[in-house]
Amino acid sequence: MFLEKLNTIISTKKTLLCVGLDPDIEQIPPFLLSKLDPLLYFNQKIVEATGPYAAAYKLNLAFYEALGIAGWDLLEKTLALLPEDAVVIADAKRADVPNTSRKYAEAYFKTYGFDAVTVSPYMGLDALEPFLEHEDRGIFVLCLTSNPGSADFQQLPVNEDPLYLKVAERVMEWNFIYGNCGLVVGGTHFNEIERIRSVAPSLPFLIPGVGAQGGNLEWAVRYGTDERGLGALINASRSILYASQDRDFDRAAAEKARALRDQINQVLQAAGK
Amino acid sequence: MFLEKLNTIISTKKTLLCVGLDPDIEQIPPFLLSKLDPLLYFNQKIVEATGPYAAAYKLNLAFYEALGIAGWDLLEKTLALLPEDAVVIADAKRADVPNTSRKYAEAYFKTYGFDAVTVSPYMGLDALEPFLEHEDRGIFVLCLTSNPGSADFQQLPVNEDPLYLKVAERVMEWNFIYGNCGLVVGGTHFNEIERIRSVAPSLPFLIPGVGAQGGNLEWAVRYGTDERGLGALINASRSILYASQDRDFDRAAAEKARALRDQINQVLQAAGK
Repeated sequence: MFLEKLNTIISTKKTLLCVGLDPDIEQIPPFLLSKLDPLLYFNQKIVEATGPYAAAYKLNLAFYEALGIAGWDLLEKTLALLPEDAVVIADAKRADVPNTSRKYAEAYFKTYGFDAVTVSPYMGLDALEPFLEHEDRGIFVLCLTSNPGSADFQQLPVNEDPLYLKVAERVMEWNFIYGNCGLVVGGTHFNEIERIRSVAPSLPFLIPGVGAQGGNLEWAVRYGTDERGLGALINASRSILYASQDRDFDRAAAEKARALRDQINQVLQAAGK
Repeated sequence: MFLEKLNTIISTKKTLLCVGLDPDIEQIPPFLLSKLDPLLYFNQKIVEATGPYAAAYKLNLAFYEALGIAGWDLLEKTLALLPEDAVVIADAKRADVPNTSRKYAEAYFKTYGFDAVTVSPYMGLDALEPFLEHEDRGIFVLCLTSNPGSADFQQLPVNEDPLYLKVAERVMEWNFIYGNCGLVVGGTHFNEIERIRSVAPSLPFLIPGVGAQGGNLEWAVRYGTDERGLGALINASRSILYASQDRDFDRAAAEKARALRDQINQVLQAAGK
């Protein structure tokens, strides 16, 4: 079961940190460009440096897909580098008619062996069922995203409540059936996290936006976690990956990862979790 | 400009048909399995057979992504087979934070050279801007999808109107700025198409769901097109691709495509468009 695996890793390694492994040829340290395979080398060094501090790695597929065939080769080789004691999430934000979602689910869970995937709720339950039916895998449904555009539709009022709360409620219902649901909740909406946690007390939250996007770490940790201080992943991508543009980029990434893990654990301690 | 290109092709070839090129190894005629590259051979034969009747080809990326690296190779080789006088749509249903959507837009418009892409509205405008900024390409935003799950969120009431109508209104606003927006409207919702057309009179509609999913062709054509009978694509995938399981599968596909084109044109004529 995905949630058990996640919580076991969180408890054992004492970290909620998720490292977003989104390599960008325009942002990696320039000295790497002379390597045979700069992005693979970069990923390898980042994984080695951050492994001890990471409960999870999240690979946003856009960064791989943008490279064409070479990107899917990079994805496969990167997946082979990831440590056993971390869950691996495909940040895909997919969903389609059932016949098609089945193909995506096969791709992520069978072809690539991810532990979990992010999906979009707009097309409704039957578009998500082909993912949910993989009962040993986790499905994080977009609820309230970290970007300003989350105001355009996610926060529109449906009867009394904002749409994102309706999404959280429905995902809770689906979780009673499938048992493997979670939510993506942006760390930039610190007032709303508490509200979402109150309607979805048992779901794991994947929380991006506390790094480069400037979210509030304290609220993300306090209300993102369940009552035991588990069931949450705090993701940082650019703030860790690009901590330095020099030859020490991997040590700088390790430092950032360790510091963020420690900050998170301090909040948990202060909250008595 | 995408819409001009689309309407020129529609007018010249006198067809609104979009062929969904979603090859599935489990559904192609069994005799093809002995070929060196069965799916590429299948795609090639389908394209040759349907070319005269198709204003567009829509490639749902799930069917390629599910195959791993071989799938992206298939995608590249299939794109090279498509005729000049058809627009080519990546059915991707993507959208992400701006930094990430930029990567997807690069992938589809630059790496692969698609004319248009389908995107999901849930994350709002800033998630779509990196696509919209490619002003010579088309962006079809999911509005009301063809699957039963469209009732879960798309049809929830926001103030007085269903969410999908709010999406249509916002996309109309964005189109005033960017000029390259369209909507995905499922052919299974024939009562709703008219309503969406009334709030978005100038946007092109991509209409799936009239084939295997059982939508109503007459309403899809009548209200899916603009007042000149242009600006709409009626997509069929499985009903054309798998019209026969025998050696004549390509001729059967051509027959289905021609018949559907003719049916569509009869509706247009009856509607005086």
